[in-house]
Amino acid sequence: MDIKPIRHARGEATRQAILEAAETVFADVGFTTARLEDVAAAVGIRRPSIVYYFSNKQELYDAVEEDIFASMHRVALGGIAQHAKPIDRLLALFDEWLDFLVARPSAARIIQRLVADVTPRAGNPTQFSNVLLRDVETVVNEGIATGDFRPLPPMHVVNAVGSSSLFYVCNSKQLGSNRSYDAADPAELESFRELLHLLTRAAVAPERPG
Amino acid sequence: MDIKPIRHARGEATRQAILEAAETVFADVGFTTARLEDVAAAVGIRRPSIVYYFSNKQELYDAVEEDIFASMHRVALGGIAQHAKPIDRLLALFDEWLDFLVARPSAARIIQRLVADVTPRAGNPTQFSNVLLRDVETVVNEGIATGDFRPLPPMHVVNAVGSSSLFYVCNSKQLGSNRSYDAADPAELESFRELLHLLTRAAVAPERPG
Repeated sequence: MDIKPIRHARGEATRQAILEAAETVFADVGFTTARLEDVAAAVGIRRPSIVYYFSNKQELYDAVEEDIFASMHRVALGGIAQHAKPIDRLLALFDEWLDFLVARPSAARIIQRLVADVTPRAGNPTQFSNVLLRDVETVVNEGIATGDFRPLPPMHVVNAVGSSSLFYVCNSKQLGSNRSYDAADPAELESFRELLHLLTRAAVAPERPG
Repeated sequence: MDIKPIRHARGEATRQAILEAAETVFADVGFTTARLEDVAAAVGIRRPSIVYYFSNKQELYDAVEEDIFASMHRVALGGIAQHAKPIDRLLALFDEWLDFLVARPSAARIIQRLVADVTPRAGNPTQFSNVLLRDVETVVNEGIATGDFRPLPPMHVVNAVGSSSLFYVCNSKQLGSNRSYDAADPAELESFRELLHLLTRAAVAPERPG
């Protein structure tokens, strides 16, 4: 009897459980404070079992960050591909970012921490986020080329519009108990999405609104 | 000869130097990793001299955060007061935030870290930031009351528009070497400010632009 496939499946499940627990720990306390022991405890395994999959904290963190940006990039591409008009492609991109971050607030916090760092990723801050930034560049530059968008730096669009979903998700409990909200509440989410669409259109519109 | 006033002035200067060094250290590495030794070294004094002014790390951090939000609130009020029309008051508010954060990027990073935290300030995340949030509420609600603005949640305006200046400042070196910029460069700053104004107007405009 060959039990290798079963062993392999079990190993993959453990690896995935470690990644998910690690994402929560890194999101909650940041890279420096996070300990492999806390991740192990959350999964219900011992520290050496983590080291079997990820040889140290940096490797584990890198796997978490890579997974966040690769997953976000994948859903964004899926959304973009469903549309032909530049504005619809840009709205789809930001819609996918918003839905992804609302469903995975730990990812939102990790990205916020990455932005706050002064020397992120030892001088290569976009090792994993570059795929996302390229998506925005591609869609914005397409729109500029067709004349659907006014000429503007794609990174301005990231900073001024794309970033808002991170704040929407992370700030739900940070603005005081009298102002707290549930970012996943359908009415709240649609109200924010409406504003996000309005701002996306305004940012790239060739003619300035009165 | 009474030397008390001189002593007092010297004490104030030291206290201020500690606060400034601490802001940089907390911005660079975050609260947990920051050490009073690093702050002392940056000021050129010994650790016990810090404890004379701030009894522990939390007290020092609180003084830094309080000063950031109080200063930002003060310049915002000054900007708002120069205008009568709601839209001009809101633009002035965000202009002051932008200029403040560009001039003091360490403050931008500390606010970014505060947004990323899951349990900031032991359950009272707005202990010091509340003055800023109230400014936005006041100006947005005034505009809604006069009919200059459409009805919308002031915190949506914070998340979707006000927050973008944090990203503009913090992301200058985080988007890859081929996309890096100088947030304080006058042309870059005015280009971003133009977009910030356009988005602020779009967010609150009573009629949706085509």
